Amino acid sequence: MSPDSNLSFAAPSASKAELEEGTAFTPRFDEHGLIGAIVTDAQGGGVLMFAFMNAEALRLTIETGEAHFYSRSRKSLWKKGETSGNVLRVRELLTDCDQDVLWVKVELQGEAACHTGRHSCFYRRVEADADRVALEFVTR
Amino acid sequence: MSPDSNLSFAAPSASKAELEEGTAFTPRFDEHGLIGAIVTDAQGGGVLMFAFMNAEALRLTIETGEAHFYSRSRKSLWKKGETSGNVLRVRELLTDCDQDVLWVKVELQGEAACHTGRHSCFYRRVEADADRVALEFVTR
Repeated sequence: MSPDSNLSFAAPSASKAELEEGTAFTPRFDEHGLIGAIVTDAQGGGVLMFAFMNAEALRLTIETGEAHFYSRSRKSLWKKGETSGNVLRVRELLTDCDQDVLWVKVELQGEAACHTGRHSCFYRRVEADADRVALEFVTR
Repeated sequence: MSPDSNLSFAAPSASKAELEEGTAFTPRFDEHGLIGAIVTDAQGGGVLMFAFMNAEALRLTIETGEAHFYSRSRKSLWKKGETSGNVLRVRELLTDCDQDVLWVKVELQGEAACHTGRHSCFYRRVEADADRVALEFVTR
C-alpha cells in the first residue's frame, strides 16, 4: 500500500456477527479516538510494549510497515524509533473478535523496545506471598 | 496469598523513577478504575485475549491464581471460564514500565479463550494491498 493511499476506516457495523465473523476491517476506536495495540516480538514471541494508535497512526503503520502510535501524554503522533532508532517493522497485524484491540507482531530494529533501554517494557513480575505483593525484576 | 488477605493497592508514586525502577506494585488504573490486561498462552506464547481488570478483579486474580476481569459492557466483575469452563490459570503476572498495563501468562483450561469458541480472540489478520484493506482469517 502506498503512503498516498488515503486509507480510511469504515465505521464498525452494528451487527455483532459482521464485526466478529466478517472480513471488513472496522477498528473500534474508543471515545478518545484511540485503539490499544499489543506489540510482540515476531521472533521471541514475548510482549514488548503496549501503546495506543489513533486512525492516523494506524493508517501510517499499515502504509509504511513501521509502527506508529499516538501519545496520550504528549497528545501527538509518534513513529516508534524516530529518535532512538529502535524502529518496529510490522510482520503481522491482527485484530480481536470485536475489533477493539490490535496485535502487532514486529521485528525490532535495535535492542530496546522500552524507553528505559530494556528489550521489553515488561521487566517486572508481580510476586505475592502471605499478604504482601511486590514487583521483582525479571532477567531475560 | 489467601483469599481473605484484603489485599489493596497503594496509589502510584508521583516519582517516575519509583514507578519505573521501584519494586512497589502500584497499578495505574484509568479514570474508570480499570487497567488493561494482555493475556498470553504460557505454552504457545501467543496472545489469547485482551480485557480489563478493576482493583477487585486484580485482587481476585492474584489471590486465587485464576484470571478475573471487569466487563465494561455488563458493568460487572467476571471470572473467566465461570460458565464456559475455560478457566485461565495464571502462571506469571507482569506489569510494564509505567505500570498501566498488565501481562498475564496463563494456562488455558479447555480449548477456547475466545467467546466465539476459538483458541484466541485474534483469529483475523489485517491484509492490505493496493488501496484496499481487509481481514483474512488465520488458521492456527
